[in-house]
Amino acid sequence: MTDTVVSSATREVVIGFGRPFVMIGERINPTGRRLLAEEMRNGDFSRVEADALAQAAAGAHMLDVNAGIPLADEPGLLAQAVKLVQSVTDVPLSIDSSIVEALEAGIAVYEGKPLINSVTGEEEVLERVLPLVARHGAAVVAISNDETGISEDPDVRFEVARKIVNRAADHGIGAADVVVDPLVMPIGAMGTAGRQVFQLVRRLREELGVNTTCGASNVSFGLPARHMITGTFLAMAMAAGLTSAIMNPLHPEVKNAVLAADVLAGNDRDCARWIAEHRDPDAVGLRRRGGRRRGP
Amino acid sequence: MTDTVVSSATREVVIGFGRPFVMIGERINPTGRRLLAEEMRNGDFSRVEADALAQAAAGAHMLDVNAGIPLADEPGLLAQAVKLVQSVTDVPLSIDSSIVEALEAGIAVYEGKPLINSVTGEEEVLERVLPLVARHGAAVVAISNDETGISEDPDVRFEVARKIVNRAADHGIGAADVVVDPLVMPIGAMGTAGRQVFQLVRRLREELGVNTTCGASNVSFGLPARHMITGTFLAMAMAAGLTSAIMNPLHPEVKNAVLAADVLAGNDRDCARWIAEHRDPDAVGLRRRGGRRRGP
Repeated sequence: MTDTVVSSATREVVIGFGRPFVMIGERINPTGRRLLAEEMRNGDFSRVEADALAQAAAGAHMLDVNAGIPLADEPGLLAQAVKLVQSVTDVPLSIDSSIVEALEAGIAVYEGKPLINSVTGEEEVLERVLPLVARHGAAVVAISNDETGISEDPDVRFEVARKIVNRAADHGIGAADVVVDPLVMPIGAMGTAGRQVFQLVRRLREELGVNTTCGASNVSFGLPARHMITGTFLAMAMAAGLTSAIMNPLHPEVKNAVLAADVLAGNDRDCARWIAEHRDPDAVGLRRRGGRRRGP
Repeated sequence: MTDTVVSSATREVVIGFGRPFVMIGERINPTGRRLLAEEMRNGDFSRVEADALAQAAAGAHMLDVNAGIPLADEPGLLAQAVKLVQSVTDVPLSIDSSIVEALEAGIAVYEGKPLINSVTGEEEVLERVLPLVARHGAAVVAISNDETGISEDPDVRFEVARKIVNRAADHGIGAADVVVDPLVMPIGAMGTAGRQVFQLVRRLREELGVNTTCGASNVSFGLPARHMITGTFLAMAMAAGLTSAIMNPLHPEVKNAVLAADVLAGNDRDCARWIAEHRDPDAVGLRRRGGRRRGP
């Protein structure tokens, strides 16, 4: 079995087959959050702190931290965010940027073994990110696109993933430290988006033996009642072998689908977690009659 | 592709791969419903009528009709129930009994091509039910247990299913008219129950090319927030290839999981059904803030 181990100073998290699914909180990301972007740019990290605490309390096993704000000092902001989040929670982090200098700055202040998010199959990115991952003994998210963009052909995406895994090995990074993101497209725009991911996840698991992750919310972009679509997508992808996702654990439809899928995959021993979470029927917005549902 | 076609006097429903999942309403069944059993025994079918209308309105493509009441005239009651339900809805029926005389009585009054629920792998049952199915040109649910009971080994259950499909062929019943039920155990009692079903459904589809169904509610027996477990189970089983289920379309968690899984499997063209169902956010109990949820 392939175990991807990441850690903070005091806590270890393992992504692996036959283990509980790893929920990576997606919220600390200014993309599409104008208020958060504005605050971070002005050095106000109060919302970052609140988002970290809320997601960890909701059950996130890891948190993704992104500081991608146009024209801002992304390396400086990312390092600040990483330090702050590590000071208020003990969950391991996914350090998220498309700028190598920002990844470097985040890793430099990180305590533990982070997940670096991400490397693509583009030559220049491979040759800059993989040495960084190797030098720090980190794990890395491999996104299956390359110079030609994101192929709509899942076989091409599989081959890009294989290339990244092989290239990582050249740098001394084992397959256990490469977590492949098969890339999730909006199902409203591309009717085959779900099937492509399910098929890719299965091949990545069976043929490359790697763990997988994805940005789950993207699948439901533009649709009504989208959190039900995202949650159901995650359950189906878990049935195909997905072992982690960058997602929002604050949406009950999403979190509960993951917890239920863990029960059904046999990864929640004696249903202990499910029963503990749902002992109070009002706790996760599931009360059926006359109950108020909590906001997101 | 394998298409199982069933019909009422005026409506045809097709169970098949790459088609929208077929929801078979489970409610018209006195097992565990003491009040319904008492009423039916006394000739009061008002609740049967109400259950038929409610499930059809909620989107059930077919309705299962069962009249299994201890010490009652099951053939007479089942025939009455079938006639009544056909008089108020046009959805095709699954005629459900473990007593062959009751199946005969139900088929005798049925208009269209029903699904007969069920035949097992037991010799005596095979030799009594299959001629009935063949004579009426019906389709049949094949339950994968035999004289030795229900095996905990999915390979044994697969072989029982294969035996029934072969025996049906001897009677002139094609594989398209055999819908296999892999048998769903409560996940709370058996942690492997989910994985067994997913693996069996995949083999039944790939190796026997048959459609599949199951009594979905059983999986969540005894657990809190059970409808979320049932809905998530259905989505994962659909990812493995399940094409229909006997289920309760009146539970929003169950119905929405099926509709979302159809979107993600690419069986809801342009997400048209999902969008239509969720245009009014209060329509299916999904309103997020301050909204009242509908009862079951």
